[in-house]
Amino acid sequence: MDMLLFSLDKTSGTPLYEQLYNGIKDAIIQQKIKVAEKLPSKRKLADFLNISQTTIELAYAQLLAEGYISSKARVGYFVEALDELPYIEIATPKTHFKPSFIPSYRYDFNPSFIDTANFPFSTWRKYARDSYDEANAHLLLAGDAQGEYALRTEIADYLYQSRGVQCQPEQIVIGSGTEQLLPMLIRLFNHYTVFALEHPGYPSVARILRQHNRTPLPIKVDEEGIQVQALEQTNTDVVYLTPSHQFPTGAVLSATRRTQLLNWAAASPSRFIIEDDYDSEFRYTGKPIPALQALDANDKVIYMSTFTKSLMPSLRVAYFVLPLSLMTTYNKLFTYYSSTVPRFDQHIVANFMRDGHFAKHLNRMRKVYRKKHNELIEALQHYPDVSISGSQAGMHIVITIAHQSEQQLFEQAKKAGIAVYPMSRYAIRYEPTTAAQFLLGFGGLTSIAKAVDDLMHVWQIKKV
Amino acid sequence: MDMLLFSLDKTSGTPLYEQLYNGIKDAIIQQKIKVAEKLPSKRKLADFLNISQTTIELAYAQLLAEGYISSKARVGYFVEALDELPYIEIATPKTHFKPSFIPSYRYDFNPSFIDTANFPFSTWRKYARDSYDEANAHLLLAGDAQGEYALRTEIADYLYQSRGVQCQPEQIVIGSGTEQLLPMLIRLFNHYTVFALEHPGYPSVARILRQHNRTPLPIKVDEEGIQVQALEQTNTDVVYLTPSHQFPTGAVLSATRRTQLLNWAAASPSRFIIEDDYDSEFRYTGKPIPALQALDANDKVIYMSTFTKSLMPSLRVAYFVLPLSLMTTYNKLFTYYSSTVPRFDQHIVANFMRDGHFAKHLNRMRKVYRKKHNELIEALQHYPDVSISGSQAGMHIVITIAHQSEQQLFEQAKKAGIAVYPMSRYAIRYEPTTAAQFLLGFGGLTSIAKAVDDLMHVWQIKKV
Repeated sequence: MDMLLFSLDKTSGTPLYEQLYNGIKDAIIQQKIKVAEKLPSKRKLADFLNISQTTIELAYAQLLAEGYISSKARVGYFVEALDELPYIEIATPKTHFKPSFIPSYRYDFNPSFIDTANFPFSTWRKYARDSYDEANAHLLLAGDAQGEYALRTEIADYLYQSRGVQCQPEQIVIGSGTEQLLPMLIRLFNHYTVFALEHPGYPSVARILRQHNRTPLPIKVDEEGIQVQALEQTNTDVVYLTPSHQFPTGAVLSATRRTQLLNWAAASPSRFIIEDDYDSEFRYTGKPIPALQALDANDKVIYMSTFTKSLMPSLRVAYFVLPLSLMTTYNKLFTYYSSTVPRFDQHIVANFMRDGHFAKHLNRMRKVYRKKHNELIEALQHYPDVSISGSQAGMHIVITIAHQSEQQLFEQAKKAGIAVYPMSRYAIRYEPTTAAQFLLGFGGLTSIAKAVDDLMHVWQIKKV
Repeated sequence: MDMLLFSLDKTSGTPLYEQLYNGIKDAIIQQKIKVAEKLPSKRKLADFLNISQTTIELAYAQLLAEGYISSKARVGYFVEALDELPYIEIATPKTHFKPSFIPSYRYDFNPSFIDTANFPFSTWRKYARDSYDEANAHLLLAGDAQGEYALRTEIADYLYQSRGVQCQPEQIVIGSGTEQLLPMLIRLFNHYTVFALEHPGYPSVARILRQHNRTPLPIKVDEEGIQVQALEQTNTDVVYLTPSHQFPTGAVLSATRRTQLLNWAAASPSRFIIEDDYDSEFRYTGKPIPALQALDANDKVIYMSTFTKSLMPSLRVAYFVLPLSLMTTYNKLFTYYSSTVPRFDQHIVANFMRDGHFAKHLNRMRKVYRKKHNELIEALQHYPDVSISGSQAGMHIVITIAHQSEQQLFEQAKKAGIAVYPMSRYAIRYEPTTAAQFLLGFGGLTSIAKAVDDLMHVWQIKKV
């Protein structure tokens, strides 16, 4: 090695050992030093560069650790062969992709947006730091396909205390979201082809069903939730619904219908209810209503939920709770399945829950969302032409404006830089409507009163 | 509020404000203080309990933050209504689940185990800490369905430099693993029902195909990789293969077959190759071989890979690179799709790669695995009755023992607490064999020579 290759700058901010390390590394990569060539001894190089032997030692140790050089005891350090492909210099014919257009709104009433200003980052960071630790090296390997037992234990406790759901960790399956969990449930009901779901409801659920060659059967929703009587008149055995805060109408399934639905399921061994409890954490009026699963004495309810609203949409942690009667089928079908949720993340969430931070966070966010919710309701009360529904819980409400075209109002708002979400987007089957309805999500909004006033101004709706 | 409710212990290790906070909180939960009741003023309570007003202030602030009380300016603090369901005390009839039996082996030659002793936890922790930051609050919301652009950019750069793969971030789709990505590819080839795959190969790929009502068509593998001539004699249009280090045989697809395969694909517009490059990072002999995708001039190869071997199996980050010709179909089919990979994790990986830590880690691990690989080969060379194959790359090799029963050797090893992986497990279709073959993974093993000697002793194979 030509020792003249390196010039060190003692006045630069970069430590000398790092300068030396970079110099030798680059020389190896650029093949200025050949493979198997011996590096000068630490003493010799220290003398030549007029720096301490410790500096050389640090640089060599780093190169050794990264595999650029190897050491032979009592002989010295040698340049190793690089395994990387040499940088291939081909003039790539770059295709020009259109930059994806992200519309930027003045106000976005997106019902899936959450409040991002109150997330406990410092606490979360602490749990992330504690998890990514040498002591947890075993968590690098693949984990339990059903999800980490520690997290399932915390979820079981939480569900029991906050939703009355009774289950054991063994009944819980953790996954990356509804889109990933629902196909698993479809496989559990292998011989069923028709799945009932709420109309209006989640078009994505209907889409997933169709992708798996299943038929979605829409059942109408009114102010008491899904019309169980209509369900009873079908031949369906499985129904998917959102009883606590129906999506999108916001209706709460009435006590009578709950009993009726559970009785429907109990009437045949092949009947099951999939209860999606997607945003029950936040409730603003009336008493908390326990989950359907909590009322079910016949092992008929598959309970589903997610941390999307309660922690963050980008976490991708959701789960379902299987009734005992379906556990055997599950265990048989999913022997070879592996979990899609990162193991370290599962432990971050589990420890965050274990130490009570999840309960605290929910308490804090309940206040935040209640405040936003009340602000929205109050702002809308100045507009008697706008009626409100579905406002007991969750992170969105529904407004109805009689004798208006939904499409036209939507376009007007969009042109003015305000995003609103037309009810017709959530129709499972087409139906003509006489009034315009919109979902107004308030989770992600800040100047709510101003947003409402601006929107109504655009729509030319009278303020009183 | 009855101020006598609280007794503080000044000699206890718990800070006074925390004792007070806990006392008031419990009283609220147990409804000893009623909703809307006014709390005593800070001064009054401080006087009564004979502690500083600051202590009271801290306790009240905490209760306020967690929503147990609210404050009215210049009036005081009031107890809030609790939204949680009261703790339901039902004697749950607990079902007894059998504790799942996890066999513990003295030595486990699992080919999917990685080395966990050299993961750069401290660096990773730094990136986790930097990601989970208030400044990144926008990352709480749902991200790009294809995966974060920042990560796709790093992957594109890495693939170009290390595998010769030419692509742009727009062509990359990030997902939670093969089990999650393969069904997406199946949907891309909507009208195809027969998919060719290597035999022996990944039984999980065959399983996923069958679950989606597709037919897996096994094509035999020999020491040059998949028999392309056999593929040419079928009517299949899509083939899934592992050319760089065939799983499980370890064969490397020969140069002749590579050309032959690319020509096969080029011969019809509907033909495509799915190249799974699952463990190409680690290569021990011979020159690095670029990916098939790098040799393909006709936009015929879908390149797939994962961070399972290069970072950790539990991270659940994998990806595919679509040829430009399939981008339109992808964009049309996956409009409503949402990513299954946590957004913060994607940024941790992206930043780790951007700052060169991924390249450094691979360099380090190459040395670690080369050492383990050489140790295994060396140990086996004392046993002339055992022949080695598939040892050029990856994290496992294959051993063949002539005139022996695979099942019998497997049972013997298991009884002795040694896990070995019979080749027959990876058969896509049944075939009688004359020799016993096993996959020996070395990634997770430490005392390799001892493990080999013990295994051979159990099998009564002569050492020379």
